[in-house]
Order: sequence, then C-alpha cells, then structure tokens
Amino acid sequence: MSDRLSGVLCPVITPFDEDLFPDEKRLVRQCEWLLSQNVGLAVFGTNSEANSLSVDEKIELLVGLVEAGIDPSRMMPGTGCCALTDTVRLTAHAARKGCAGVLMLPPFYYKDVSDDGIYASVAEVIQRVGNDDLRIYLYHIPPIAQVGYSIDLIERLVTDFPKTVVGIKDSSGDWANTHAMLERQWDDFRVFVGSESFLLANMQNGGAGCISATANINPAAIDALYGNWQSDEAVAMQAGLDKIRGIVADYPMIPALKATVAEYSGDDAWRAVRPPLLQLDGENSAKLAASLKKNGFGMPGLS
Amino acid sequence: MSDRLSGVLCPVITPFDEDLFPDEKRLVRQCEWLLSQNVGLAVFGTNSEANSLSVDEKIELLVGLVEAGIDPSRMMPGTGCCALTDTVRLTAHAARKGCAGVLMLPPFYYKDVSDDGIYASVAEVIQRVGNDDLRIYLYHIPPIAQVGYSIDLIERLVTDFPKTVVGIKDSSGDWANTHAMLERQWDDFRVFVGSESFLLANMQNGGAGCISATANINPAAIDALYGNWQSDEAVAMQAGLDKIRGIVADYPMIPALKATVAEYSGDDAWRAVRPPLLQLDGENSAKLAASLKKNGFGMPGLS
Repeated sequence: MSDRLSGVLCPVITPFDEDLFPDEKRLVRQCEWLLSQNVGLAVFGTNSEANSLSVDEKIELLVGLVEAGIDPSRMMPGTGCCALTDTVRLTAHAARKGCAGVLMLPPFYYKDVSDDGIYASVAEVIQRVGNDDLRIYLYHIPPIAQVGYSIDLIERLVTDFPKTVVGIKDSSGDWANTHAMLERQWDDFRVFVGSESFLLANMQNGGAGCISATANINPAAIDALYGNWQSDEAVAMQAGLDKIRGIVADYPMIPALKATVAEYSGDDAWRAVRPPLLQLDGENSAKLAASLKKNGFGMPGLS
Repeated sequence: MSDRLSGVLCPVITPFDEDLFPDEKRLVRQCEWLLSQNVGLAVFGTNSEANSLSVDEKIELLVGLVEAGIDPSRMMPGTGCCALTDTVRLTAHAARKGCAGVLMLPPFYYKDVSDDGIYASVAEVIQRVGNDDLRIYLYHIPPIAQVGYSIDLIERLVTDFPKTVVGIKDSSGDWANTHAMLERQWDDFRVFVGSESFLLANMQNGGAGCISATANINPAAIDALYGNWQSDEAVAMQAGLDKIRGIVADYPMIPALKATVAEYSGDDAWRAVRPPLLQLDGENSAKLAASLKKNGFGMPGLS
C-alpha cells in the first residue's frame, strides 16, 4: 500500500456455487474483465454481499485473487465488520497482501454510538494492525449501516492519522454531505461518491471518482465520464449513465446486477444470492433485460 | 437441547481484560452468580456486546463456560450473525454443546429484506446445522437490528419447523406486538419479553418470561416477580422493578450495567467495553451508584 487511489472502482458482485459457497474462479474472471475496463476492485463491498460472508471466506477469496494474478495495487477490499477483532484480522490481511487500500465500514450493530466511540474503534484498528502501509478509505453508508462518519469525526481521524485515513466513499446519497466533505479540503483526501449519478458533480468539485454498484455492468461508460469530465460531452455522458442506472434501480440492486451479468454472459450461475437476499425471478429478469436491450446496453468483452 | 425454556434469562455482560479480549474467568464467575439467583444464561446477547466479538471468540467462551461446569441446559446463547456461514457455525456449535436453545438474530446488515428472504435464511441455517436437538428462539429487536421477524413470518416458521422454532424474545419495546404474538397461541411457543417492564403483562397473557439486560444486576427481584406474578404483591413488585430499571435507563445501558457490577463487586475491571461503546465516566458512574444506593439497591452474593 502507498499511492492513493482515484478513478472508478467496482464493488464486485460475489458469485456463488450451487451450495451458496463463494465461487473463486468466476470471481477471478469477473475481476479480470473489470480491470480490462479500467475499473478498480472494491471487492467485499455492500454489493458484493460481503456482510453475508464470514471473515474466513473473505480471506480465502483475497488469497485466491492475488494468487490468480489480480493486482493488489488495484484493490480496495471492504474490511469493516461489527466485531473489532474481525475488522483487525481482515484489515491486517489486506495490508499484508499489498492491497492499495481498504474500505472500512464503522462497526454497525450498535446504534446511536458516539463519534468518540467510532473514533476509538478506528484508532484501535490502526494501532492493532500496526502496518505503515495501511491506507483506510472510510465507508459512509448510513441508509444501510445506520452508523456513519460525521464530517467532524472524519476531520479528527484525518488530523490524527494523516498517512492512514486517506479517503472516503460517501454512499449517503446526499450530495450536500459530499460537498461539505469536499469543502474541508483535507490534504490529498480522496472523496469517492457511492453512485455514478454524482460523478460529474464530484469531479467538478475536486472529488476523486466513484465506487458504484453499477460499475459491475457499465464500467467502461462510467470510466469514460471519469476520464472526460472536463469535455463538452460530459453532461450528455452523465445523462447516459443515469439512464442505465435508473433502469436497474427499478429492481433490488444486487439481484438485478447478478441477473444482468448472467444475461450478458449467458452464465446462469451468476444469479445466485445468499439469504436474506433473493434472486430476481424470471419475469423481472426478462423485463430488466428487455429494458436494457431497448436502450442499446451492452457488456462488451464479458465472457 | 430438548425442553423448552421459561422464566428469567440474562444477556450476560462480557468482561474484558486490559487488552480488551474476553475474560473467561470473570465470565464464569458471573454466570455462576446469575445461576445462583435462578436466572438462565442468554450469553452473547446485545447486552453482552456479542456483536463486538468474533465467532471464534464466542466459540472459545462457550467451550470455556461448559468446561468450567456451567450447565448448558440453562443456556440460550445468541448465534445470529450477518453472514449465513457464521450463524451456521455458531449455532451448530451451541447445539453440539447441549445448549437448551439459541437466540437468533436475523441477518441484519442488508435492510428492507423480505420475509421470504429471512425465511430462507432461517430455513438454510436449520438445514445446514442438521441437528434434531436444535431449539431456536427468534430474536426480534428492530430498534437495533432494524431487521426483524413479522408475525406472519413467525407463523410460517413455527408451522414449517414446529420442533425447532420454539419461541421468541420480543425486544421491540412495543407491547402491542408482543400481545399480537401471544394471541396467535402457537402450540407451546415461548414468548419472552425483552424487558422486565412487560414481565407481569406477559405472564398475565400466557407469556414465558423475560430476557432482560437488567437481569445482570437485579436478577433475584425479577425472578421473584416471575415466580409470584399471580400473587397480590405482583403489581408492587413490577413497580419496584420499573424503578430500578428507570434509574439505569438514564445512562447508556451496557456501560451502566458494567459500572454497576464494578461498583457492587469492587472489581473495576468490569468497566471495560469494546469500541464503539465507551465506558461510563467517573462522574456518571458516581451519580448512577448514588441513585441506586439511595433506593436501597443491592446485589447480594456478588463476589
């Protein structure tokens, strides 16, 4: 770990075998395809069903990805768990494997916890991991985790751990919150939006990029806006991204992403999700596929 | 596992050593004291900071408790985690150790999941554990887990797994919800309230008892109401319990319980909590202790 990340990253969906165990081979292939589209790998994100995987399963997958040749300098695995000891173990592992960074949820079971308590959690993780190469990107997703990082808490963390706490993914869905972070202008702090819907606005205001669910299916187009946000076509490109995202957002996101990858790869195994999620039924899968095709949507190079 | 549970159980607070690792010896001593007060052991509950412990830590503690002679027929460990594989591993372990039951949170990271999805999760756990002695008590605590068990979902589970899904702890704090469960009169289904504030009402309506945080400090008095709910003194006993609970509820519950045990045992090590929780500061500890003492509160037999 050393260089800070920017650009577009994907919370890679996790394929399961028929017994609902992670399917490492399919995951490697998907990561290779995403990298070929110039998109980084935020494996073990919300959309990866990471919180439906045990720490052992995540560690095994990470080992498998690196052994298969996936470049850890393009990886930002999610490592924040409810239990301090789980977060420490997974974060330490990611740092040892040379991952460019980790994306860290706050401990999310106990609600109404104080900023001091979340600060203590992050500080304890940093101290216990004890690896100078560790780079933490905070993962702020209050609609799901319910517990989040306030602007003042981020400032405390950046001030006290300037080489370690280097960025954030803001999945609040609240542009005012993202904008407030950007306005603080912490030194080289990387602000990623959690949806490409805010990508142009983020780049225009000094942001670093986006880490978005939809990058699982539309990586090249999202990366194209990232690379050309100052061009005359940027507004039209943003509108194009929003259209595709809007189609998918009519369905439960994770099952819809998996159904789309299954549809375009011809590999139905991709449809499987772990409980408590349920895979998209046939009727909705067909409707989603029809809407995407009507809009000329494709996934070139997907095998 | 076989007989169904009733009475008063305690979500036993978890002591930590100076490095914030679980302190097995202190936990054994506390469980012995609670059993001496006729209170069962719902270890690894919300108030045990169970979601701040890894699965390995919980398994090690469970092994330690049973090896130390704590009777598993008095235990209902919490085993519901975010990840299916974690829940299966911990539940299978508890069943193998002969625990009377397990208290199972639904997978709680993903929000707005369907009843069908939660049903699939519970069914998958039962099938994977594959132990006829398994007895599941559902853990409904929407204020914290956000995800819960609806009345209709409970009915489906009880109907399809009548020997396995045998009860619930309702920590909704909503008596109307508890009452609606009791009205369904599922065969020998055990309804525990999550606070002794509802203990008398629960017993009057066919409930099985309570599993309450405050049983960590006030076990004998709570058990006395359970044993005498039909007596003339029951209303006064309920009022006495409510008074003590009200005093503690002015502070963050878990730190306040730990401060109280520290105060009455003279063992300050009990004060430690894991982040994201913070221990009660000196001023609040003193205020809490003073309020309890002013009300003649004691913890007889605590060592």
